[in-house]
Amino acid sequence: MRDFVYCAPTRVVFGRDTEKQVGQLLKDFGAKRVLLQYGGGSVKRSGLYDTVVACVKAAGIELFEMGGVQPNPRLSFVREAIELCRKESIDFLLAIGGGSAIDSTKATAVGVPYEGDVWDFYAGKQQPKTALPLGVVLTFPAAGSEGSNSSVITNVEAGGIKRGLGCDLTRPAFAIYNPELTYTLPPYQTAAGASDIMAHTMERYFTNEPDVDFSDRLCESLLKTIIRQAPVCLKDPTNYEARAEMMWASTVAHNDFLSNFRLGDWASHQLSHELSGAYDSTHGAALAVIFPAWMKYVYKHDVKRFCRFAVNVMGVEPDFFHEEETALKGIAALENFYRSIGMPVTLKELGVPDTQLRELAEKVKRNPDGTVGQFVKLNTEDCLAIYELAR
Amino acid sequence: MRDFVYCAPTRVVFGRDTEKQVGQLLKDFGAKRVLLQYGGGSVKRSGLYDTVVACVKAAGIELFEMGGVQPNPRLSFVREAIELCRKESIDFLLAIGGGSAIDSTKATAVGVPYEGDVWDFYAGKQQPKTALPLGVVLTFPAAGSEGSNSSVITNVEAGGIKRGLGCDLTRPAFAIYNPELTYTLPPYQTAAGASDIMAHTMERYFTNEPDVDFSDRLCESLLKTIIRQAPVCLKDPTNYEARAEMMWASTVAHNDFLSNFRLGDWASHQLSHELSGAYDSTHGAALAVIFPAWMKYVYKHDVKRFCRFAVNVMGVEPDFFHEEETALKGIAALENFYRSIGMPVTLKELGVPDTQLRELAEKVKRNPDGTVGQFVKLNTEDCLAIYELAR
Repeated sequence: MRDFVYCAPTRVVFGRDTEKQVGQLLKDFGAKRVLLQYGGGSVKRSGLYDTVVACVKAAGIELFEMGGVQPNPRLSFVREAIELCRKESIDFLLAIGGGSAIDSTKATAVGVPYEGDVWDFYAGKQQPKTALPLGVVLTFPAAGSEGSNSSVITNVEAGGIKRGLGCDLTRPAFAIYNPELTYTLPPYQTAAGASDIMAHTMERYFTNEPDVDFSDRLCESLLKTIIRQAPVCLKDPTNYEARAEMMWASTVAHNDFLSNFRLGDWASHQLSHELSGAYDSTHGAALAVIFPAWMKYVYKHDVKRFCRFAVNVMGVEPDFFHEEETALKGIAALENFYRSIGMPVTLKELGVPDTQLRELAEKVKRNPDGTVGQFVKLNTEDCLAIYELAR
Repeated sequence: MRDFVYCAPTRVVFGRDTEKQVGQLLKDFGAKRVLLQYGGGSVKRSGLYDTVVACVKAAGIELFEMGGVQPNPRLSFVREAIELCRKESIDFLLAIGGGSAIDSTKATAVGVPYEGDVWDFYAGKQQPKTALPLGVVLTFPAAGSEGSNSSVITNVEAGGIKRGLGCDLTRPAFAIYNPELTYTLPPYQTAAGASDIMAHTMERYFTNEPDVDFSDRLCESLLKTIIRQAPVCLKDPTNYEARAEMMWASTVAHNDFLSNFRLGDWASHQLSHELSGAYDSTHGAALAVIFPAWMKYVYKHDVKRFCRFAVNVMGVEPDFFHEEETALKGIAALENFYRSIGMPVTLKELGVPDTQLRELAEKVKRNPDGTVGQFVKLNTEDCLAIYELAR
């Protein structure tokens, strides 16, 4: 059981039509000159962009904008945004979208007041000392970035390196959630979001800390919620309640509420980031491929924890006489769940050629000793073996 | 499923020796002149008082103090504290203790900048517009006041009227948790704390909102944690892990994280407040008496929810052919649990004479129409019937 400091101060505004409160919220937080970042055309097609712009302007706030944030958001875009903020004396940032728009905005937030290059933070050379405040209108529940302290940026020029930053200064000041805004998400994105939310929870769940029963239970509650609600969202995309539970679970899974007392693993995220960085794989889809492979490779490290996962999350019958079998049934059930919601479970389905696995594995070094992960520390050969299991 | 706004910004600092960070935390939050409130002699006997005072002074902060906060904290004490704050230009408040010290401090926080009498807020005549900031060193996990927006004050002069205030301005800026500080809690207080934490969760659990499965599960996780850890704390008072889970559960049960999407009931709290107000009953003990009686009186309103409680919280075997029986088994199991940890389950054990029940019931009017509660709206005769069931 570990000590912790926890502070998740984001003001959550949840319900129908809440996007219309964006102007007032910006005013409440003292915003005067705002840069809005968003992704593709969907927020324009849906009318959300027009609503937000009208509300912000009606609040008497000067609005600037940069559309075109890409999935696996790019360092080059962030650098442009930083330049614009400096030129226009922006004092508050706003993102419409999911993890990509929010992470791009977070990187901008720490980059603007920093005299060096913003990549320094993602390369682990510097830690931000100050940041612009930011707000979010959430349209895609997955990354959990709307409440978290983390962001992930891809450096395309450096060969598709995807790196994350954890920094409490980047927790949004407010986040607006209207589940109706997620009704039009394509099924694949809905499923990939579910996979991402589950992955954030499982990274925390698989820990070596003993006596963390309370947060174990909280993690299990969240995983069961996604397993229940993701299929509802796929079958009935305008089911408000299912969309709402997915949306709120997205935040809870990643704002560190589930981290208290625990040290998470995070190897599967890093193994997946290499796939997204090199092949632009959808993050949630990459995680659906990697997580079961990782589990098969490491479950013997703590068979009892995998039994708990199998029984308490995946609904496997408890069998104390056959623990290993119980553990494996849980992993198989997770794989089946991913399949059932239309996620890939092999690298082949993901479109990753199996000729490059060693090259990928060589890159997955995050710990000072060149390993990755905390539950089990994996070296390059371990990473390669997991990629091989995922073929 | 209800809309919600949720913001629980308290900085949680959790672990051994964390009380020694109090000076630095006060400095981080800009405190210069601090009023410390605490209760009886236990914080002096344990050495905690000396540690805190030394840390605060070492940080160069001017410290004033008022000891002697009583259980069911008094309005008269709060008025004195407000006077002192004004006289000494206090800019930050600090509480050492549990719900009583914290609630007294919260009432002081809203009272200082208000030109009228602070009771106006608790009588529901006014809502605070501003408040002094406050911090907490927690010694008694129960009330959850260390992370909540609520406080309860007793007006002894007006005949023992106990009333609450919900106000986000009173959420502590920081809260310090060292589970070791709870090792010396007497068994009765430990058990009463467990009852209080469970009550905060059950008030939220029993709702008429459909489709709130995620927060149902979170509530169940918390209740099962207390049912597991309270007996450990009683048997092994220096069990760090069990004390830690109780301590963190205390906050989660009452900082509104479990309220999202739901409207809670709160009748049992009001029925209990009348007992504490008139007979100075320990809050958690009064709740242990009232909650099962309330359940027996209202369970027919939603037998299926009581079945869910019985099965998912109390471990009763699911029996879909006999729902009412299943529901009643859950209530009986809760009553047995309270007994097993040494809590009273009758008014007689609590020392409340059964001659005054009508007089008590007449006072339990909180809704505009004179009823109390939301899950089931209870009139005076209903309240009397519940008190009778609790005899």
